[in-house]
Amino acid sequence: MKRIAILGSTGSIGINTLDVISRLKGRFEVIGLSASANVGLLARQAISSSARVVSVMDSRLEKDLKILVPGGVEITSGEDGLLDMVSRPDVDLVVFAISGNVCLRPLMKAIEEKKEIALANKEALVSAGEIIMASSRKNNVRIIPIDSEHSAIFQCMEGRLRKSLKKIYLTSSGGPLLNVAKKEFKNLTKELVLNHPRWKMGRKITVDSATLMNKGLEVIEARHLFDIDESSIEVLTHPEAVVHSMVELLDGSIIAQLAAADMRLPIQFALTYPERVESDVKRLDLAKIKQLNFQKPDLERFPSLSLARQALKTGRTYPTVLNAADEEAVGLFLHDELPFFRIPSIVEDVLARHKGAGASPLTIDDVFEADSWARMETRKLCCH
Amino acid sequence: MKRIAILGSTGSIGINTLDVISRLKGRFEVIGLSASANVGLLARQAISSSARVVSVMDSRLEKDLKILVPGGVEITSGEDGLLDMVSRPDVDLVVFAISGNVCLRPLMKAIEEKKEIALANKEALVSAGEIIMASSRKNNVRIIPIDSEHSAIFQCMEGRLRKSLKKIYLTSSGGPLLNVAKKEFKNLTKELVLNHPRWKMGRKITVDSATLMNKGLEVIEARHLFDIDESSIEVLTHPEAVVHSMVELLDGSIIAQLAAADMRLPIQFALTYPERVESDVKRLDLAKIKQLNFQKPDLERFPSLSLARQALKTGRTYPTVLNAADEEAVGLFLHDELPFFRIPSIVEDVLARHKGAGASPLTIDDVFEADSWARMETRKLCCH
Repeated sequence: MKRIAILGSTGSIGINTLDVISRLKGRFEVIGLSASANVGLLARQAISSSARVVSVMDSRLEKDLKILVPGGVEITSGEDGLLDMVSRPDVDLVVFAISGNVCLRPLMKAIEEKKEIALANKEALVSAGEIIMASSRKNNVRIIPIDSEHSAIFQCMEGRLRKSLKKIYLTSSGGPLLNVAKKEFKNLTKELVLNHPRWKMGRKITVDSATLMNKGLEVIEARHLFDIDESSIEVLTHPEAVVHSMVELLDGSIIAQLAAADMRLPIQFALTYPERVESDVKRLDLAKIKQLNFQKPDLERFPSLSLARQALKTGRTYPTVLNAADEEAVGLFLHDELPFFRIPSIVEDVLARHKGAGASPLTIDDVFEADSWARMETRKLCCH
Repeated sequence: MKRIAILGSTGSIGINTLDVISRLKGRFEVIGLSASANVGLLARQAISSSARVVSVMDSRLEKDLKILVPGGVEITSGEDGLLDMVSRPDVDLVVFAISGNVCLRPLMKAIEEKKEIALANKEALVSAGEIIMASSRKNNVRIIPIDSEHSAIFQCMEGRLRKSLKKIYLTSSGGPLLNVAKKEFKNLTKELVLNHPRWKMGRKITVDSATLMNKGLEVIEARHLFDIDESSIEVLTHPEAVVHSMVELLDGSIIAQLAAADMRLPIQFALTYPERVESDVKRLDLAKIKQLNFQKPDLERFPSLSLARQALKTGRTYPTVLNAADEEAVGLFLHDELPFFRIPSIVEDVLARHKGAGASPLTIDDVFEADSWARMETRKLCCH
């Protein structure tokens, strides 16, 4: 019986994780759940999963939570609540399903505590990939990614030596704007941008998938997760979103992972690893799908991908700034304060103004500082 | 330094094997080479690879071979020559690159001698799969297939547990007749049939790939190599021949192997396994290939695939008879003694006349007997 804590159980990944756990009866025990603010759902999840501890980010909601959960369930809040939860001796595996940098310190803590890690959060690896991976190597902790692309790469490399890996092909559905001409970008409504053809996801990530910034962030994640040069990660547009990514091995052989677009598959893989068990995810029928298409991404229409690569190559806090500036810019777009086409140029401007932290080893504090600076700078630039 | 014997070094697979070995300098030592009758090429290969022993199937050619190779090189002939070669203590790995059932006894011997096995021969597994696999399990000998499809499946399953395997997708280019209407089959010339769009191969296997019997034989091989039910092996037509095969795992995830159509890749994999090393095989450029297509095979135009499945399900010596009858029928077609469209119906008739060997455990002798009977029966049916 693997004992699990889910950070961010009320979001899309968290809900799917609980769905996978309830289906695989007898394999997992839910110890802890956390949410940002949705205490109603958090309490219902705690009851149905018999969780021992629940934590809410906004500490003012602790008392509301107390009314909703049965007596005996521990209640905590804030970052401290998360740090406590990932340190519990009765937790074997932590699912990081929260988004944002709030994940960073709990993730570092979980690694130091040598917990198994299932990671759905993007920002931590993008902002502080080197720090996290150094700690995971030092503590001999394996991070299993939940992102469908990185899970695919992980699955393709399963049972193979790192030295066999020559290249990664990160696939991209192309997002909702794949076939939209650049001159239309000026008139794009929020509704059009938020209508993703393949994946149902949160609003922020859907906008990122329209600009291809999402793929840029994934390049950065892949660089850290698989210890591979940026130049050996190629992005391939693949509109059917059937091949979730591929690896090229030393001899020229390519191994690909294909599956239905259902997050429960990478979630289940991360939970049951190294075992594989039955799932009721829809099976692929390639004779019915008939055709898989591949093309190079259009960097002219989607400059965010190049911005991400450049930030990764420069290194230090540049990826942190890229991520924070993008998050702010997307937020402003979602609040109708910035037109869609300006998102990449704002991010580019913020990166150009950034002065990276010095030569000393990067710390989590450097990351948080660069993050705050980039957010402020983005808002400043946007309001001019 | 791995020490290698190549049975069938003058054929296409043998030549490619020597090419791979000469490129991977310092990794392999060639101990023995064998050929059916081409003593000229065999001698040249022996000289350039510094082989210690050469063997020719036709014993009358021993004296010719003696003139061609340097003194000190051992010369043997016939089945005994092959049996000796695979038993040598200075041989670690045997490449079975000969076609036909002549491979059967040397293969069984090599397994008993616990040699590493790289297997390109199809007939042995088709005719005597159960006997061979039982011996390989008993002797704890792993057989690494060289066929591109089975190598792909092996690569997809590398590092995974057998119990994770749910289904195999065996891909087929569709062969030279993929887009030829059934009514044209009556007028097919040898030239048209022998013109394969994707692979340069021998004449027999190219005809088999036109009837799809080749894929049928591969279904039988896969059943034995991967210990999987016939019903869990699906054939998918994939004209680009880029995906060499796929496996579906328990959870619904599919792992595929893709590569350029170059036999040196599966050969090198079998030789260097479990390591991967650089090769100069052409790299795939999926953005250039653009499209991969998949469809179900047309069993109405290509009944051989169903014949093979039926023979496999009936078991015992039926696959032996299928293989022998097909080989004879194809030979007759290549000698203009049988029209192309009659190949499957002759095989079907021979299978219908076969009375399988009794209930006692199948022996190699049963296999040879059924094989001879089927060949005779095929010629009889054909001449009526």
